Amino acid sequence: YGKNTIKFLRLHREGKKHFVKEVEVCTHLRLTSAHEYLDGNNSLVIPTDTIKNIVLVLAKKNGIPTLEQFAIDICKHFMTTFCQVAYVKTYIQEVPWQRLHENGVPHIHSFICVPDGIRFCEVEQCRNGPLVVFAGIKDLKLMKTTQSGFEGFYKNEHTTLPERNDRILCGELFCKWSYGECRDFDFDYVWYMNKIRECILEAFAGPPDCGKYSASYQKTVNDIQMLVLSKVSQVQVIEAVLNNTFYNVVDMKNLGLTNDKEVLVPVETPYGSCACTLGRKKFLEG
Amino acid sequence: YGKNTIKFLRLHREGKKHFVKEVEVCTHLRLTSAHEYLDGNNSLVIPTDTIKNIVLVLAKKNGIPTLEQFAIDICKHFMTTFCQVAYVKTYIQEVPWQRLHENGVPHIHSFICVPDGIRFCEVEQCRNGPLVVFAGIKDLKLMKTTQSGFEGFYKNEHTTLPERNDRILCGELFCKWSYGECRDFDFDYVWYMNKIRECILEAFAGPPDCGKYSASYQKTVNDIQMLVLSKVSQVQVIEAVLNNTFYNVVDMKNLGLTNDKEVLVPVETPYGSCACTLGRKKFLEG
Amino acid sequence: YGKNTIKFLRLHREGKKHFVKEVEVCTHLRLTSAHEYLDGNNSLVIPTDTIKNIVLVLAKKNGIPTLEQFAIDICKHFMTTFCQVAYVKTYIQEVPWQRLHENGVPHIHSFICVPDGIRFCEVEQCRNGPLVVFAGIKDLKLMKTTQSGFEGFYKNEHTTLPERNDRILCGELFCKWSYGECRDFDFDYVWYMNKIRECILEAFAGPPDCGKYSASYQKTVNDIQMLVLSKVSQVQVIEAVLNNTFYNVVDMKNLGLTNDKEVLVPVETPYGSCACTLGRKKFLEG
Amino acid sequence: YGKNTIKFLRLHREGKKHFVKEVEVCTHLRLTSAHEYLDGNNSLVIPTDTIKNIVLVLAKKNGIPTLEQFAIDICKHFMTTFCQVAYVKTYIQEVPWQRLHENGVPHIHSFICVPDGIRFCEVEQCRNGPLVVFAGIKDLKLMKTTQSGFEGFYKNEHTTLPERNDRILCGELFCKWSYGECRDFDFDYVWYMNKIRECILEAFAGPPDCGKYSASYQKTVNDIQMLVLSKVSQVQVIEAVLNNTFYNVVDMKNLGLTNDKEVLVPVETPYGSCACTLGRKKFLEG
Repeated sequence: YGKNTIKFLRLHREGKKHFVKEVEVCTHLRLTSAHEYLDGNNSLVIPTDTIKNIVLVLAKKNGIPTLEQFAIDICKHFMTTFCQVAYVKTYIQEVPWQRLHENGVPHIHSFICVPDGIRFCEVEQCRNGPLVVFAGIKDLKLMKTTQSGFEGFYKNEHTTLPERNDRILCGELFCKWSYGECRDFDFDYVWYMNKIRECILEAFAGPPDCGKYSASYQKTVNDIQMLVLSKVSQVQVIEAVLNNTFYNVVDMKNLGLTNDKEVLVPVETPYGSCACTLGRKKFLEG
Repeated sequence: YGKNTIKFLRLHREGKKHFVKEVEVCTHLRLTSAHEYLDGNNSLVIPTDTIKNIVLVLAKKNGIPTLEQFAIDICKHFMTTFCQVAYVKTYIQEVPWQRLHENGVPHIHSFICVPDGIRFCEVEQCRNGPLVVFAGIKDLKLMKTTQSGFEGFYKNEHTTLPERNDRILCGELFCKWSYGECRDFDFDYVWYMNKIRECILEAFAGPPDCGKYSASYQKTVNDIQMLVLSKVSQVQVIEAVLNNTFYNVVDMKNLGLTNDKEVLVPVETPYGSCACTLGRKKFLEG
Repeated sequence: YGKNTIKFLRLHREGKKHFVKEVEVCTHLRLTSAHEYLDGNNSLVIPTDTIKNIVLVLAKKNGIPTLEQFAIDICKHFMTTFCQVAYVKTYIQEVPWQRLHENGVPHIHSFICVPDGIRFCEVEQCRNGPLVVFAGIKDLKLMKTTQSGFEGFYKNEHTTLPERNDRILCGELFCKWSYGECRDFDFDYVWYMNKIRECILEAFAGPPDCGKYSASYQKTVNDIQMLVLSKVSQVQVIEAVLNNTFYNVVDMKNLGLTNDKEVLVPVETPYGSCACTLGRKKFLEG
Repeated sequence: YGKNTIKFLRLHREGKKHFVKEVEVCTHLRLTSAHEYLDGNNSLVIPTDTIKNIVLVLAKKNGIPTLEQFAIDICKHFMTTFCQVAYVKTYIQEVPWQRLHENGVPHIHSFICVPDGIRFCEVEQCRNGPLVVFAGIKDLKLMKTTQSGFEGFYKNEHTTLPERNDRILCGELFCKWSYGECRDFDFDYVWYMNKIRECILEAFAGPPDCGKYSASYQKTVNDIQMLVLSKVSQVQVIEAVLNNTFYNVVDMKNLGLTNDKEVLVPVETPYGSCACTLGRKKFLEG
């Protein structure tokens, strides 16, 4: 049980300059016994209202240095304070506020919401077990208008899809990776120094002057994982999901026109999905 | 990988009387090899477009006798037709069309959408493994305006929640259960004869003339599971999740009024959540 | 300016039997001057927080006899209390809680949410003007699987739609009507005695044993309006909007099958829309 | 009646460099007669399917030089081609694809969706009347963490809001303006050269080093309108709506802490709303 979507804003001031971190926190617990389920005995139950208070108090006391560190703080607090907690998991996602700029000058206290990918993290711990830290990005919508095809696939009597070597590749990307054992580092430093987001975009798009051919959604997903694993040594395992929107070239023959992939219509449902988890030791599942 | 949200309507006619089944199907596959990920070799890949075609063809040929049977048909088809498939999972949910009635007379071809709980099922199979059939109901929003409290819970310096023995219990219920080995039966017969939906509502609400006291969300979740397990012998394990909306009694002292739980405001976020999985052999996890 | 989506539950008790009314209220005001916009002088501004308090206090004091009466109470309160208010409008919609029944017996305090059409009302008043009362129903999703066609329409070089005399008609209906001058009546009595909802469903579906042919969405919209106007004398003007979802018969020729309108796929975007306002004096606009 | 949400992508290529414009178009017509409503005579009805075809054909033939010009093309086409059309309105909004950059180098064919404000336009025309062109931006979420207050407002027995001179101002902005008679210009030139978006952000935020005090949401709305009108001579009338989210400073006294506006919780409903339309001739309505 737990409390979902605890939304709050943590405001930090350095002189007249303000810094904001708005987050949504979900914290779930499993207790060592189940009396509250079986006989309605609540004596060990930590109310979800108390869970909310603890999250807000920790935000007040510690601030939110990074999403990951704050999630670690929350998990540690529950494990050390309550001996009846057998397992704790905390998920945090960030509202993507960005500082406003006027003619290149950063504004001291004004912000705009720019949802081009949402950062999140997840930390979990069993009693007597290690803290496991995941981080990721979701809702990242990307498109390439060429350098994508799908050919040589398996065919039978139910196949109607034509082979194509120049289609639009458009999808929403979800990536989540674990940082393994190394838990005492600055997570934002890892994020920014290794340019994880840029790395994902580069693997998707290829070189700016020519792109890189994608033989399938699966191959592109794998390219993203391989590049992150090769560039970011702290990442142990990376999961990626690409939910792709198909674009149909509108057939305009009946309307007396030739449509050379100029007008295309998105097919939002059904949509394809392709997921893969890739680790360092050749561990692989579809 | 797979195809999500294949939406279609299956229309069945008996003379002038029409029967509709509108569903959303998600089918996911895992292949025995991963060449398409690693080296872009698509030769074993079944395109998601073909997956969609197969689902539609099966609907045309077999109809949708029950959601569960149709999901079984889909999984069996992939396992028997494609030797490169290592695992298949199919999720189906139904659009809740109900036949219109005029003065009690059923209409032969007119329907209204009544989303008071959505039926779904999920079937999965590994190569050489058994078919596993799940069924469930989701998005079931229920409320009781009394006979609910929460007392005697764990308290510490972060506790601000008062004890209460008369609060509103309101939540959205998700239930999912497995039917174990017994797979050759009429799933709609099990559903309707055992009155599974009525059973869930009864466990939530208690007797119509007095209700039943709920000591916690956890206890109510357990009551629902216990009643379904006791009344429906085919159910092996049942998972239930209650996402509850808290209702705050508005404090009207500053406005010169006494509010005897007459005006309450819903607190939609954060919301509490309570999940439990219960099986027949006393297997229990929070 | 105003306050949107003031959500609250009004609980009414008669002995052990409970009655609930959960609503969302939006109240907007226009003031007689605009100093707050031009020079930041707030002296006449009624804070939206005060608007919220007034709505809650009126709910506590008066209860919610009907949505329409409660909206009238709110508008009257603002007009008589604040001389700086030039115009007030209140919109209310109801959360569709229905009493639970067990084996036909109504439960005294348990409810289920059944969103098969949402009732709403809107009341507006200018200073020195009359109260104008609107009521309506929205989000009503209906389908008929035959007795619908579209033929004889205008054709030119951009026409690709074939003529059809047996298609599926499926749409979401919005109806809103005004009650004109007659404002001192029991609005729920009008609603239930005249069976407005049943009337709309009947005009859509036709007789239960054979239906009624719809020559176009436009004609069906007009049929609904005509029937309501003819059966409910209190309704002065009625607006109706039908947002229709088109169902495509899946072409299975390439898959070796003949699909006799058995498997159809909904086309959710683009969707057609057809709106009409009809009054008693042959006033008509599209 | 009409067709809503015609979604398509218009791809334009200059050598290897690709340009994308993905839009959603809604086109509504009113015919000069109403036979289709009254007696089911469809002979003058232009099917919504034909409307869709026309929009796609115009996109293929003309491209989408600007949203506004494309909407004008559509309206003109319907007015000149169909003498039965009495009125036509076209609304277009753009999917906010932005070209990807790698280390500052623009990518030739890869894009990312960045929804920090959605551009839209609306063009309408009555037979024998002028084309009226509106443009705007919506879903622009902004926040300032200080330099906002609300004091000196009207108080009575229902007032519980305290006066405040340092609160968070956060809201979603909608702006829509008309370009009046001047219709033969390059709308994107007006947009970019006059920096309309930057102008709105500047009026909201104030100077980057100190901000600008907002005495109320109303005053901020007016500031935005005044600045746009003063800087962009082509704008005749501007409407602005600010839907604000209130942030509550969490009271931590019971938890033994002093919260100096460091931890705040958003109140998403009810939310306040403030709308104003401002023209050049001191025309003003709330």
